[in-house]
Amino acid sequence: MTTYRVAFLPDEGEVQVEEGATLLQAAEQAGIQLSTLCGGEGLCGECRVQVVGGKALADKHAIGFFTGDELRQGYVLACQTKVEDDLEVTIPTRSRLAEQHIITEGVPITYSQPEKVVLHRRPYDPASYFEPLVTKVYLELPEPTLSDNTADIDRVTRELRRELRDSDYEVSLACLQNLATTLRQHQWKVTATVARVGERGRILAIEGGDTTDRHYGLAIDVGTTTVVTQLIDMRDGKVLGVEGSFNLQARYGEDVISRMVFACGRGSLEPVHRAVIANINNLTGTLVREHGIDPKDISAVVAAGNTTMTHFLLNLMPCSIRLEPYVPTATLYPQVRASEIGIEVSPEGIIEVMPGVASYVGGDIVAGVLACGLADKPETKCLIDVGTNGEIVIGNNEWLVCCSASAGPAFEGSGSRSGMRAARGAIQKIEIRDGEVSYETIGKAKPRGICGSGLIDAIYEMVRNGIIGQDGKFDVSRGDSRLVAEDDPRYTLAYPEETETGEAITVSEAEIGNLIKSKGAVFAAIKSLVDYVGLTFGELDTIYVAGGFGSSLDLPKAVAIGLLPDIEIERIQFVGNSSVMGARMGLISAPAFEKAIDIARKMTNIELSNYAPFMSEFVAALFLPHTDSRLFPSVRY
Amino acid sequence: MTTYRVAFLPDEGEVQVEEGATLLQAAEQAGIQLSTLCGGEGLCGECRVQVVGGKALADKHAIGFFTGDELRQGYVLACQTKVEDDLEVTIPTRSRLAEQHIITEGVPITYSQPEKVVLHRRPYDPASYFEPLVTKVYLELPEPTLSDNTADIDRVTRELRRELRDSDYEVSLACLQNLATTLRQHQWKVTATVARVGERGRILAIEGGDTTDRHYGLAIDVGTTTVVTQLIDMRDGKVLGVEGSFNLQARYGEDVISRMVFACGRGSLEPVHRAVIANINNLTGTLVREHGIDPKDISAVVAAGNTTMTHFLLNLMPCSIRLEPYVPTATLYPQVRASEIGIEVSPEGIIEVMPGVASYVGGDIVAGVLACGLADKPETKCLIDVGTNGEIVIGNNEWLVCCSASAGPAFEGSGSRSGMRAARGAIQKIEIRDGEVSYETIGKAKPRGICGSGLIDAIYEMVRNGIIGQDGKFDVSRGDSRLVAEDDPRYTLAYPEETETGEAITVSEAEIGNLIKSKGAVFAAIKSLVDYVGLTFGELDTIYVAGGFGSSLDLPKAVAIGLLPDIEIERIQFVGNSSVMGARMGLISAPAFEKAIDIARKMTNIELSNYAPFMSEFVAALFLPHTDSRLFPSVRY
Repeated sequence: MTTYRVAFLPDEGEVQVEEGATLLQAAEQAGIQLSTLCGGEGLCGECRVQVVGGKALADKHAIGFFTGDELRQGYVLACQTKVEDDLEVTIPTRSRLAEQHIITEGVPITYSQPEKVVLHRRPYDPASYFEPLVTKVYLELPEPTLSDNTADIDRVTRELRRELRDSDYEVSLACLQNLATTLRQHQWKVTATVARVGERGRILAIEGGDTTDRHYGLAIDVGTTTVVTQLIDMRDGKVLGVEGSFNLQARYGEDVISRMVFACGRGSLEPVHRAVIANINNLTGTLVREHGIDPKDISAVVAAGNTTMTHFLLNLMPCSIRLEPYVPTATLYPQVRASEIGIEVSPEGIIEVMPGVASYVGGDIVAGVLACGLADKPETKCLIDVGTNGEIVIGNNEWLVCCSASAGPAFEGSGSRSGMRAARGAIQKIEIRDGEVSYETIGKAKPRGICGSGLIDAIYEMVRNGIIGQDGKFDVSRGDSRLVAEDDPRYTLAYPEETETGEAITVSEAEIGNLIKSKGAVFAAIKSLVDYVGLTFGELDTIYVAGGFGSSLDLPKAVAIGLLPDIEIERIQFVGNSSVMGARMGLISAPAFEKAIDIARKMTNIELSNYAPFMSEFVAALFLPHTDSRLFPSVRY
Repeated sequence: MTTYRVAFLPDEGEVQVEEGATLLQAAEQAGIQLSTLCGGEGLCGECRVQVVGGKALADKHAIGFFTGDELRQGYVLACQTKVEDDLEVTIPTRSRLAEQHIITEGVPITYSQPEKVVLHRRPYDPASYFEPLVTKVYLELPEPTLSDNTADIDRVTRELRRELRDSDYEVSLACLQNLATTLRQHQWKVTATVARVGERGRILAIEGGDTTDRHYGLAIDVGTTTVVTQLIDMRDGKVLGVEGSFNLQARYGEDVISRMVFACGRGSLEPVHRAVIANINNLTGTLVREHGIDPKDISAVVAAGNTTMTHFLLNLMPCSIRLEPYVPTATLYPQVRASEIGIEVSPEGIIEVMPGVASYVGGDIVAGVLACGLADKPETKCLIDVGTNGEIVIGNNEWLVCCSASAGPAFEGSGSRSGMRAARGAIQKIEIRDGEVSYETIGKAKPRGICGSGLIDAIYEMVRNGIIGQDGKFDVSRGDSRLVAEDDPRYTLAYPEETETGEAITVSEAEIGNLIKSKGAVFAAIKSLVDYVGLTFGELDTIYVAGGFGSSLDLPKAVAIGLLPDIEIERIQFVGNSSVMGARMGLISAPAFEKAIDIARKMTNIELSNYAPFMSEFVAALFLPHTDSRLFPSVRY
């Protein structure tokens, strides 16, 4: 068989590969990890490489990922390109597998369980009981006799009733069809897998023998940007492993709106649906391989996502979510077999999706309310989830109100020249002192860009140092070597020689303006909601901040730029990915899932586009921190 | 194209057919209707004809229906034999389509609805309400606005709650997946199809526009011998049409035991399951053609059958039903999509199967109890269903007990030389006076055999005329020209010259012995049950007799031979096919179906094989009418 030589320039080694191997395989052989979100299917366009010597033809399906210029320059997708010549290849930095820094876990909340430990049972709150959504019960049944010849399934449920508290059981026809044989072949020793649906038990499977030691579940946060999956041991609720990846749907649009435009217009729903299912299956595949378990032993999945992501997940038409009056197909979803939507776990395994409230207040927020215990006690608390949308909930054990404001992509590191997601090499913390910029990157790597928390820091520091005014405008009269006076003036945070890419990392006046709009929208939403319920910020017991910032969000700086209300800093708590945290709670506690439904039902959604005071609040918030400085008494620049 | 001549001997005409036509098609062309229970699939073996001139080859799949002798004599299945020669054919009488005399309707009971009329609402009994198991509701929904932008499905259920009494709705994922599009394409005017599952509503489909004028259901009695299907207009509960056919499973065995032996031993479950599904689809096909309706508009099916037939219907393993301690897989069955078991109606249509009590007291009996109102009032009543098994229920609105006794095939016209099912040409009534036998046949045709009710008459008349003694033995000393003194003496009811087949119709001493055993088993079961509950026959308010006898059962003669207890004849009522009657009640009244579940739960099954007094009762009953004449005070021969 012919072999070819592939050299990775400038100095990353050279390998011999057999004819027909892909460039992706060649790179792996050379020890180079390329980014392949889609698992090498030619779907994500992440593994771009440039062939600078030798002949390689871009696969015709892959050329859509490149401009004509790029194609002429020899750009190809490594996974779709077969080696049929000796090749010289260079790898752009962005194609390398960065250590993904996806927020895969909520930060434990004071009262809540420490990571990887089961829920602590709080007597007043059944949602804290470890009582998994799907239970496996080993049964040793008495053999039937003439005086006890009840039907097989009744013999099973009679025993189940002794073990579980459900009184009423549903069973599928498929489960009945082999029951007689299974029971007799296994001497009446079987394991029943039982899901909870409201007050009833649903028997998913009855297997021979004792299989209770193999019982797993998945808690999933289906985010617009990232998908995070936790593998849970359903025997004790412990997290066995976590994997996250960027949402493959990105190829159909960065945000929910553009994905809806694709699904409802020039494209169709199916590929967007399939993309997120591929995400979940990839992550699950990695988890089961790492932990040496059989995916057939996963019988429960709980997913949380915003309403649009939930529609994509369940293959529901999302088109009317986008248009006034913003109507989703459903906010409470039926329990279905995970296999029905293509999730590769046990064929009898079920998926529950966290209920939402409205088109722009979804199951991720309800999961967050559950995880943060907002609805548990009489004290009024607040949850703020900051992403492309800012969702805000205020409430207590009596009432809950919520709203959503479009914040734009600034907090997620998108929409600006140097912006990037919170991944390896992203600047996440910044300090400016005496004209010197010091920063900290994720993974302590050479900087590649700046993410949301870095941007918040940058703006705070720039105001504090007088580089920009509280209106966000540069003082171009200052002679600052870092300030590049273009049409859109631009401040240099890292010079080209400092960075991984060789390009400067900068932030421009227009980009600052966008961030001010974003923080203004979120703050105006919080303010409108607090006013709506007739409270003041001071009456909020705690503010929980969730979102994709990573654990690096500097809360005082977030207050100082006017993103978060100015209350005692101890009462503001960063909670990270509260969505996956709530999904896990629902997975390992059926009462918690019930509580989530109750939360969704109880929550009153205020449609800000229909709420007059919002717009003036928004305009008033377009200042750092705010046009009304009395709202930020502690902020001094 | 070559054509051939097919002559039907002796004088039924001659047709020209094209090469490759089947003999069945040739017969149809000649105006001869052959019996084809399976619709010409080569499954039922009913369309046997004899090719006496020309060459025709029996299809190799069909030869299992014939003995070697028959094959040599030119017997073939008409439906499986292609015409490839000029042929001369004779048709055995038994292959002709007899007017099937299948009991397709229950005889209206005093309090119950007249045939083809909806239930009369009795205020004390919700089971009498017309409140169909599946309802279609036309909804004109208000368009969403910003101040009313609840999710699509909630808009639907909100309106449904105003129309129906259910408070809680389930919806399938499939139903949600196109909801947004359907609602908007049809200007918020849709028809919801809603099934009842216990206290909940299950939304099966949401179609655009008003489709409420197309809404049908099926009530089915899945009997061991016959399958009966009623097509119901679900708008008013009226019976639009009825079709019945012999159960195609007969090819796997005449009775439930031999079919179980086939399914669990040398054969497998699948073909037995498929046979009854083919029955239902054939009957439904005929009904929808006759009434010009689309099978997709049938969205509800209720079936009733004995426990074994129910297992075959649902493809459940029946093997343990047959063996002590007689355990079925289930007696309460989940509501499933009819398409899941292959029934060709609406893909979203559901099937409910009447719940049973035990392996030998099935849903047909529960349906009978429902139809006869046994559980309605304080008066204690009795239902006796006589077939291969005799099932007996005694009870009132407080309690119900039941039992089952194997009666053998005698009452169904099987197991004897001249016995036949209650079809055209069967002798159903007999009188013997002064040595002369007069009889009445079904369809007033020339006699072809004798069915169950005819046999009961015959035996009564033979005792009354001193032809046999009360022990069932012939008095061979009597010089009676009708008595043929073989090893097994045999009495001639019809001479060869009187009959369709040219063979005498006779009844032998051994056959009489079998019938005595059968009636003895049924009577002993009734007696055991009455004793068990501490009553006497006189305390039974009414005895309902159900079964395949047709309306010809002579009740006084059935009492006189000791099949039925000797109570005032006015208190015995023949009810015919109470199983299909109960199925229809469950179909057009969800409360009636709920009541059936309640009846099944309430009913105590007495396992006679485990009940010591039964055997002595059986032995005591092997006499005409009984060894204890005090039990039959009114019977005088």
